[in-house]
Amino acid sequence: MTSPATTERLIDRAAADLLPSVAARLACRNGMATTTAGVADGFVQGNLAILPESLAASFHRFCQLNPKPCPIIGMSDVGDPRIPALGLDLDIRTDLPRYRVWRDGEVIEEPTDIMAHWRDDLVAFVLGCSFSFEEALMADELPIRHIDRKVRVPMYRTNIACHPSGPFAGPMVVSMRPFKPADAIRAVQITSRFPAVHGAPVHLGHPHSIGIQDLAKPDYGDPVPVEADEIPVFWACGVTPQAVIAAAKLPFAITHAPGLMLVTDLKNKQLAVL
Amino acid sequence: MTSPATTERLIDRAAADLLPSVAARLACRNGMATTTAGVADGFVQGNLAILPESLAASFHRFCQLNPKPCPIIGMSDVGDPRIPALGLDLDIRTDLPRYRVWRDGEVIEEPTDIMAHWRDDLVAFVLGCSFSFEEALMADELPIRHIDRKVRVPMYRTNIACHPSGPFAGPMVVSMRPFKPADAIRAVQITSRFPAVHGAPVHLGHPHSIGIQDLAKPDYGDPVPVEADEIPVFWACGVTPQAVIAAAKLPFAITHAPGLMLVTDLKNKQLAVL
Repeated sequence: MTSPATTERLIDRAAADLLPSVAARLACRNGMATTTAGVADGFVQGNLAILPESLAASFHRFCQLNPKPCPIIGMSDVGDPRIPALGLDLDIRTDLPRYRVWRDGEVIEEPTDIMAHWRDDLVAFVLGCSFSFEEALMADELPIRHIDRKVRVPMYRTNIACHPSGPFAGPMVVSMRPFKPADAIRAVQITSRFPAVHGAPVHLGHPHSIGIQDLAKPDYGDPVPVEADEIPVFWACGVTPQAVIAAAKLPFAITHAPGLMLVTDLKNKQLAVL
Repeated sequence: MTSPATTERLIDRAAADLLPSVAARLACRNGMATTTAGVADGFVQGNLAILPESLAASFHRFCQLNPKPCPIIGMSDVGDPRIPALGLDLDIRTDLPRYRVWRDGEVIEEPTDIMAHWRDDLVAFVLGCSFSFEEALMADELPIRHIDRKVRVPMYRTNIACHPSGPFAGPMVVSMRPFKPADAIRAVQITSRFPAVHGAPVHLGHPHSIGIQDLAKPDYGDPVPVEADEIPVFWACGVTPQAVIAAAKLPFAITHAPGLMLVTDLKNKQLAVL
C-alpha cells in the first residue's frame, strides 16, 4: 500500500489525463481506502455483491424479483473479474477502496483488494446506489438532510418482505430523507426517472406502517431530525442485499464496505429513463 | 326544455352515430341539465370562465401565472362562441348543462344556456378538470374515496396565495384525496403526466401547513374520512378561478355550475405528456 501523499499525487496525475472515474479506480488500485462520497462527480457508483456460481443464479433471480432494493447495473461472467460495460479497464478485484469478505454470515476481513480471495467460480453483481439520485435531487436544489449534516443516511429494516429466491430472503432495508411536502412530491418525480438507482420512494409519511418504531434509532447509518412540517420519505436501499447475505449465513460472499463503492464510467444522467 | 325521457332518447340516438362527447353536447343543447360526472368516458371535461374582453387579458395572465389551478385547455376569440380545438361544432353558449351568471361577485342566475347573456366582447376560457386525472388514477386501480362513496370531492381554501393579476387574486383552492402511502407515491407519478389537468399534487401530509384547520370541514364539496394509515393528498383545484372571480366582485362573468362541465372532443389520454 502506498502512502497517502503518493496516492494523492497518483489521483491528481491520473485525473489530469483520464476520466475522473478511471482516475478513482486507479487510485483504489494504488491503495485509496476512503469513502467514495463526492468522488468523480456525475459518475455512477455501485454496490458490489460477489457470490460463487452455485449461489449466483438464485441471487440474480432475487435481484430480478426485488428491483427496487437490488437494481443490477452490471455483472461479470463466471470467474471473470472484468465488467467492460462499467469501465473497459475495470478489475472488480482491485478497483474498490475496501471490501468485506463474508463467511457463514459474518464479516471475517475488510481488505483493500480481493486478489487473494478471487476464484474461478465467482460472479460479481454491481447494483445501483442512491448517490446517483441524490445528485439529481441536489441538482434541483432539494436539501438533503444527512448530506447537509455530513453524516451517513439513516437506514431502517422494515416489515416489507423481499420476494425470496433460494437462500436469499428477508426484509427490505430503506433509507430515509425528510422533506417539506412540496419537496417530497418533487423528489418522487425526480427519483421516478431513475429506476436503475432505486427509483421512486417505497413509502412516505407513516413509518409505523412499514415497521419502523423510532426514526431516531436507525438500524444502519446515523439519525437525522425530521421537523414538524416535514415528511419522512423512504427509498429502497442497497444495504438490503448485504442484510440478506448476512441473514442467509452463506458459506462465502464478498461485498463492498459501506460507503466505499465502485466508481463506474457511466454518467448518472445516462440512467434517467426520461 | 325537453322532458327527461325525450332527452334520454336524444342522447341514445346521437350516441349511436356520433362521438360520445358530441352526443353529450347535443344533449346539453336539448336541455340536459345534470352532472357530467361519468358522461362520455375517456373524453376531457373542462371548467368554464367567460369574461368581458376588458378583463380577459388580466385573467389570461392569471392563468399563465397559476397553471396548476388554472390550466387552459382552450379559449375562444373575442365575441366568438366557438372553440374548434375542443369540438368542431362546439357552441360555448349552449353546450354545457348549466351555467352560473355572476354580477358584482354574486351568482344571479343559473340558466341552462347563455344565449340571452352572450355579448360581442366576451372571451371564453376552458380549464382542465380533475375528472381527467381521476380516470388515469382509476385505470391504475387506485381507489378514490369520494367516488367510492358517491359524494363530491372535498375542497379547501388554503394559505397558498395565487400570483395576482389585475383584479384576480386570492388563495389557491385544493381538492383532497386520501391514499395509503405507496398509492400516494403512485398518484404523484400518474398525475405528473397530466399537467393540463392540474398535474402533480401541490401538497401532502400536513394540512395545517397549507392553512387547513379541519379536514372534516371542507369549504366546498363533501367530507370524506382519512384513515390512520392514509395520507391526505392535495391537488390544485379548478374551483380556484370561481373563488377568485367571486372575491374580485367583477361586474360580470359567466362560469359553469360546479360538476356540470363542458364535455370536449379531446381524449384524456391525449393530455399525457409522456
